[in-house]
Amino acid sequence: MKRGRHREDLIEKGLQLFATKGYSATGVLDITEAAGVPKGSFYNYFQSKEDFALAVLEQYRSESQQQMTEQLAGVESPLQRLRLFFEHGRAKTCAEDFSGGCLAGRLAQELAGEQPSFRPVLDRVFGCMQGQVASLLQEACDRGEIRSGENAAELAGFLLSSWQGAATRAKAAGHDEALRVFETMVFERLLPSLAPASSATALAAN
Amino acid sequence: MKRGRHREDLIEKGLQLFATKGYSATGVLDITEAAGVPKGSFYNYFQSKEDFALAVLEQYRSESQQQMTEQLAGVESPLQRLRLFFEHGRAKTCAEDFSGGCLAGRLAQELAGEQPSFRPVLDRVFGCMQGQVASLLQEACDRGEIRSGENAAELAGFLLSSWQGAATRAKAAGHDEALRVFETMVFERLLPSLAPASSATALAAN
Repeated sequence: MKRGRHREDLIEKGLQLFATKGYSATGVLDITEAAGVPKGSFYNYFQSKEDFALAVLEQYRSESQQQMTEQLAGVESPLQRLRLFFEHGRAKTCAEDFSGGCLAGRLAQELAGEQPSFRPVLDRVFGCMQGQVASLLQEACDRGEIRSGENAAELAGFLLSSWQGAATRAKAAGHDEALRVFETMVFERLLPSLAPASSATALAAN
Repeated sequence: MKRGRHREDLIEKGLQLFATKGYSATGVLDITEAAGVPKGSFYNYFQSKEDFALAVLEQYRSESQQQMTEQLAGVESPLQRLRLFFEHGRAKTCAEDFSGGCLAGRLAQELAGEQPSFRPVLDRVFGCMQGQVASLLQEACDRGEIRSGENAAELAGFLLSSWQGAATRAKAAGHDEALRVFETMVFERLLPSLAPASSATALAAN
């Protein structure tokens, strides 16, 4: 039992420290001290810091997926759920003077070029979020909020990437304007332009 | 003369090393060794590594601005120039197995949260690129390629953020699909939807 707890504690602190300081600037000692676990025992659970970071990213993927499901429960319109998803993301990105935000975006910038071994797990994190967004868009197609024939997976990928970049820009600026512009452009320009002709006006007003 | 050369050499190596390894993982010794400059003399030019990184970002801004001007010279249509700009960005991002890419995006992710002193220069780099893209969009408005009344600065900010995120995603995946989807969505969906009704078809076919 204790062994399992230590592993969970380490991963929880890894989520915080990697999001705040990044991978290179976070040492194993920072992680074990934050978790209150003896340094030596880190290697009982993980072969290396890289192995640990892969587990942290996997945990991030699983938590993000669960959070999204919980946050959007009870909202009827798929496009309203989508907007809510991005609004929650904005609140999270801007919290505590932009010290956290999307862990996958941060580690992708830091590690994907230099350490290609991180690519499969990073791609899985993004792919998982993309799948959830694509489901919402497909549902919007099925309900006639978006015209049929649009490629939901491709559109989902575009929206997520765009959001990711807006979050980076917001962090650089220290204010949320880029994320608000993202929401305006997507929900008042792009998606209404993809609505069936008869419902475009109604969507733009949402 | 020699003093000036050393400073330039250090900044040139800083551009390469920060883009490849990031800020935290690059030591002053890495920079001076790469530039062939004695370590001690680094502090003749820069008060600290942070001071140096600010100078590197300023150089990145100035070089990027000049490159964009050169790459787009001689192309008539402002929207074609815009597309060319993003295509050049794709080639640069994917070069050498994604080891380089946009320095401002990388350092924004790494530093803007933890070290807010970087925000003004990061924001100036993004703002400068945004200004260039906004000029192209304004020109497109003036020529009737985009309908008048669109906010060129806001649209430029959205396109740049979106591209930035797509570049991060491409890096994470190790292939350029996200950047190609960005180009499709922007040049075959979003911008044609902003064209005056009479020219929308012609633009989509470009």
